[in-house]
Amino acid sequence: MVSNFYLPVEVFFGKGATQKVGEVARRFGFKGLIITGRRSSKENGSLQRVLDSLKKNGLQEILIYDKVKPNPTDESVNEAARLAVEEKVDFIVGLGGGSALDAAKAVSIVSSNEGSVWDYVKYPEGARLVPFYNRPVICIPTTSGTGSEVDRYSVISSPMRKEKLVVSHSLNYPKAAVIDPLNTLSMPPELTAITGFDALVHALESLTNRAQNFMAEEYAIKAIGLIARWLPVAVQEPDNLEAREKMSYAAMLAGIAIDHLGVAFIHTLEHPVSAHYPHVAHGAGLAALAPYITQYNYEYNKEKYALFAELMGYGNEAYRAVDALINLIETLGLPKNLKELGVEEGILDRLTEDVYMLSRHSFLVNPREPKELDEIRELYQRAYEGSL
Amino acid sequence: MVSNFYLPVEVFFGKGATQKVGEVARRFGFKGLIITGRRSSKENGSLQRVLDSLKKNGLQEILIYDKVKPNPTDESVNEAARLAVEEKVDFIVGLGGGSALDAAKAVSIVSSNEGSVWDYVKYPEGARLVPFYNRPVICIPTTSGTGSEVDRYSVISSPMRKEKLVVSHSLNYPKAAVIDPLNTLSMPPELTAITGFDALVHALESLTNRAQNFMAEEYAIKAIGLIARWLPVAVQEPDNLEAREKMSYAAMLAGIAIDHLGVAFIHTLEHPVSAHYPHVAHGAGLAALAPYITQYNYEYNKEKYALFAELMGYGNEAYRAVDALINLIETLGLPKNLKELGVEEGILDRLTEDVYMLSRHSFLVNPREPKELDEIRELYQRAYEGSL
Repeated sequence: MVSNFYLPVEVFFGKGATQKVGEVARRFGFKGLIITGRRSSKENGSLQRVLDSLKKNGLQEILIYDKVKPNPTDESVNEAARLAVEEKVDFIVGLGGGSALDAAKAVSIVSSNEGSVWDYVKYPEGARLVPFYNRPVICIPTTSGTGSEVDRYSVISSPMRKEKLVVSHSLNYPKAAVIDPLNTLSMPPELTAITGFDALVHALESLTNRAQNFMAEEYAIKAIGLIARWLPVAVQEPDNLEAREKMSYAAMLAGIAIDHLGVAFIHTLEHPVSAHYPHVAHGAGLAALAPYITQYNYEYNKEKYALFAELMGYGNEAYRAVDALINLIETLGLPKNLKELGVEEGILDRLTEDVYMLSRHSFLVNPREPKELDEIRELYQRAYEGSL
Repeated sequence: MVSNFYLPVEVFFGKGATQKVGEVARRFGFKGLIITGRRSSKENGSLQRVLDSLKKNGLQEILIYDKVKPNPTDESVNEAARLAVEEKVDFIVGLGGGSALDAAKAVSIVSSNEGSVWDYVKYPEGARLVPFYNRPVICIPTTSGTGSEVDRYSVISSPMRKEKLVVSHSLNYPKAAVIDPLNTLSMPPELTAITGFDALVHALESLTNRAQNFMAEEYAIKAIGLIARWLPVAVQEPDNLEAREKMSYAAMLAGIAIDHLGVAFIHTLEHPVSAHYPHVAHGAGLAALAPYITQYNYEYNKEKYALFAELMGYGNEAYRAVDALINLIETLGLPKNLKELGVEEGILDRLTEDVYMLSRHSFLVNPREPKELDEIRELYQRAYEGSL
């Protein structure tokens, strides 16, 4: 069994790391484009800190594209990519939560090649798009969940298609990740909980799915221990800098883990949910699904689910993984089922179809392989009703 | 405190990983140059396994440069670089112990640029030599010690100058590391001990020196635990594949640690020894120096030396780090002092001068900064006599 490890992202981690952005960006040219959301990076001061650092390093030609929404759309990626081409920017900075980071990476791919972003979802590895060049990207997370700052994924939504798909390619790594816990201090408790739960599910799914890679699994294991210990603290004490630091680190570790091992059914079943209900935050959708899917899965990889339960502080029996999740969701005030999220029962057939049409490759990755599509439909029903 | 992490090397790790070499090399072109030592890769079968994998992937134009000796010389690097230029090779494979790997990486730098290898020792970072290209290198270690397969260093000796200096540059990373414990199975116990001790000193020095980087330190800590547990087993049971696997992994982790944190006086004082006595193996020189330098250092970073002692199984007091080293050296049958190695007392003044002339930058990195050069002379004297 040969394990592979690849992390072509230079990581800068620690309080005040944002001050390094200018020094890093300077390597890549003169003119930059910052991709960010509409409000939070302005309100929490991180945008100003980034601009200050760029300016201090002689980088003054900076454009800002600030129209990225949660569950970023193909349209906004294509729009920002046109801007990058027309303005001939040398580098791109993604600043924000997973949406801004995913968008920034996809803007690089699209603006350095041709076509639009939907041409690159599910684009195969192998023949690399452009072997020698794509616009360098620096990712600066302001949440601690996504891991996008260290992985090759961009999750993009097409509102017209009602699909949420993934650009996954070795050219989609950022060149640098600047991870500064100070940028996460202003997250409200709800956002801390939602994004932190996303990181936990990254670690859980990469650890338990059928992919194998002992090096990457060590990152998942470390992340779970940190999240179990520090996520409740970060939610209850938003100003606790140690908790913020540990969560930033855990989210990064979990990002490295999914980059090598992928995810499983909690993610697979969530994507159609937020594709049809764009107001649903990814992490909230994960919470509404996680206990039911874990109940469905745990007997198929008892060793790893037992390890997860143990790391969460629930003894070392596999079935306790479900309890660990239910109790954490309760503690953090996350949604307990799909109904709570506003999902309608009438759409569950369609969600099931979407899983089959768009993501059936994951049937072989999830710990338990479904024998028929009804098992997926049943999982959605249980998650809708909240019945284990 | 901002920590940095950068590992632009794709790692393939595990039993049988050598079969991946052809698949990886194929990305880089058609014509390859294997840099290896005179005998061991032929005798242990690893060269044949590499050639088989290359051939299977359609790579048949393969040259072999097999004149690398332990403590590789500037002359042999320059000779192999001329071959790479004349034969227009697309990629380079380093196969062997640290000497072959260090040489292969330096051959890439020299053959992709100009001049000779001595132009690149102590070459400053910043203005990168060639921003877009140097010959890709694949490193395949057949020992478990050096860590060269994942770091930016090449230690090169100049017999004429009697100097041993380091090429340290971000262009000197290999593109890929293929780490196959099967390639280390044939190491005799003495070589296992010497190279494993090198890995341990990498971890010890990177952990305890004055550089700080919590991410890289985690690698050092993990390496020490593995080496303490598995190095004696690998020496006593050469065919124990689990021990070989753990040692290959530990050496890689320790390599990542020194890549980010550097080393300290055990390495600083060893380099002049093997520069003047090229028959001295680097790891043997380290063993002859380690207890005396640790005795000199431990009070200046008690916390980390205590952690080292604890990881070695000696309780958690700093002074026990010295005992841990002495006992391991005894167990492994490594040289206990410089006299045993054949070093002459009359050269100790010259070694001290060389430390000052070539490596005084390390005075600020070592846990304890010497106030005068006599302290270095005294350390050599103690290591010569074997008196703590």
